[in-house]
Amino acid sequence: MHDDVPYSGRFAGSDHLFAIRVYFEDTDAGGVVYYANYLRFMERARSDMLRLAGIDQRGTLEQGGGVYVVADLTIKYMRSAKLADEVVVVSRVEKITGARVVIHQRVMRDREILSDATVTAVFTDADGRPQRQPRAWIDIFERLKGNE
Amino acid sequence: MHDDVPYSGRFAGSDHLFAIRVYFEDTDAGGVVYYANYLRFMERARSDMLRLAGIDQRGTLEQGGGVYVVADLTIKYMRSAKLADEVVVVSRVEKITGARVVIHQRVMRDREILSDATVTAVFTDADGRPQRQPRAWIDIFERLKGNE
Amino acid sequence: MHDDVPYSGRFAGSDHLFAIRVYFEDTDAGGVVYYANYLRFMERARSDMLRLAGIDQRGTLEQGGGVYVVADLTIKYMRSAKLADEVVVVSRVEKITGARVVIHQRVMRDREILSDATVTAVFTDADGRPQRQPRAWIDIFERLKGNE
Amino acid sequence: MHDDVPYSGRFAGSDHLFAIRVYFEDTDAGGVVYYANYLRFMERARSDMLRLAGIDQRGTLEQGGGVYVVADLTIKYMRSAKLADEVVVVSRVEKITGARVVIHQRVMRDREILSDATVTAVFTDADGRPQRQPRAWIDIFERLKGNE
Repeated sequence: MHDDVPYSGRFAGSDHLFAIRVYFEDTDAGGVVYYANYLRFMERARSDMLRLAGIDQRGTLEQGGGVYVVADLTIKYMRSAKLADEVVVVSRVEKITGARVVIHQRVMRDREILSDATVTAVFTDADGRPQRQPRAWIDIFERLKGNE
Repeated sequence: MHDDVPYSGRFAGSDHLFAIRVYFEDTDAGGVVYYANYLRFMERARSDMLRLAGIDQRGTLEQGGGVYVVADLTIKYMRSAKLADEVVVVSRVEKITGARVVIHQRVMRDREILSDATVTAVFTDADGRPQRQPRAWIDIFERLKGNE
Repeated sequence: MHDDVPYSGRFAGSDHLFAIRVYFEDTDAGGVVYYANYLRFMERARSDMLRLAGIDQRGTLEQGGGVYVVADLTIKYMRSAKLADEVVVVSRVEKITGARVVIHQRVMRDREILSDATVTAVFTDADGRPQRQPRAWIDIFERLKGNE
Repeated sequence: MHDDVPYSGRFAGSDHLFAIRVYFEDTDAGGVVYYANYLRFMERARSDMLRLAGIDQRGTLEQGGGVYVVADLTIKYMRSAKLADEVVVVSRVEKITGARVVIHQRVMRDREILSDATVTAVFTDADGRPQRQPRAWIDIFERLKGNE
């Protein structure tokens, strides 16, 4: 089973593209994706964007070295995704400061924007206090941002 | 089992209060409530606030009469809830227009605000197009809002 | 907000009864509760049954003292719950051994059984190895079982 | 974005293989995948196995032609998956009758079996009553089963 590796999306310039199919678990009785589940889609995309770029969140977490948490987010829901739809999460680093990174994420279905979010993540220590991101990670984010 | 009815929270003036205990399902490997799950907490509170106020979403949905969907939301995450924490979702109607209602929601742990959100829901028809809310419902929201 | 405490269900003899209302988050595009979500309902009921009986899972977890994990489960789905349905999870301790406890759980809607499960939980140390349950907890389970 | 299509796994003889990475959303405060979330992994794998094999669940659902629901399942949890683990869901059709299909599913991490489940799905009409599966679909399942 060595060749069955999980999908991680890919970079296209500064954009990270991550395709997702909508399963029953994602939908609700309204027949569309439940509103909180777009945040799950977006977290998957952010995680893989970071990992592809060389940021190891699990290793850091296990060594007590801190973890990213979402500090705030704004999201607009324009159109709904349905069961079996194919959507793509497009993620792009917008801004980096000492403890924070701002990421812009859209969920697309072909050329339609289904939802559009701006997410601010803050790097925190084991007690939940903001702390400076590792220098190497800031460099990675700067490179991603400049990569247009 | 006639006396075992689900908890629905209660109104205190214009505020709807809805207490929730944090279960394993709500948490993640960071040891705290997963960020998207605060939106689940908030939807439970909104649903019960509406139902307590006399708005029957399921009946209306089944008759093809439309459904509320979230159009946009802004949320700030200030502190994290942990396993077995007791939190209270405090919800208040802020603004009503023809097809929209804006609700302010905070998740509290005692006197601490854990997260603070403003949610705009839009009433849509079966095809997802905004439509005017039933007159009786607008009256209910106006009454809730004025109820201070 | 001191009087707004989360609902925990109640004991009726050996049975723990826990009422739940079905929210949008619980349902899927089939219009009914998503099959994995009955397991979430059951975990909430088990957690509160244990807590009501005097077993503090969070305190024990934080002190590195072990945690219950589900070792196996069998579930039959007979009928579906829909949006806004009121259901009751009925839980009963069936068997206790050194590291294990077997709990029988049914999700009821009035007199109808919607799903019926037998869950075996095993008490594990921080590395996931089964270990003997605390003596006081075994006594609690024995008392619950005998409590008919 | 035409080349960004969601991952669907692949067949290897009678086995459908579906690789998944563990995200924060899948884990709980115990540091491992929450027990109900293995059922979400398994449903994703079953959905894609069916779709790859030519069974269109969404089209059939939209035409009022019925839907598969899980009638019963048995699952053993042997080992836990952690954040960022790469797992593979291995699914195989075991038995087909008029309205039912039995599928064996294991979640693997390299050569280790993390969980092992047998799932019986029943094809139901819009009112939840079992009905005969479409002839073409029974043929597909027979072919998958024989395909060793």
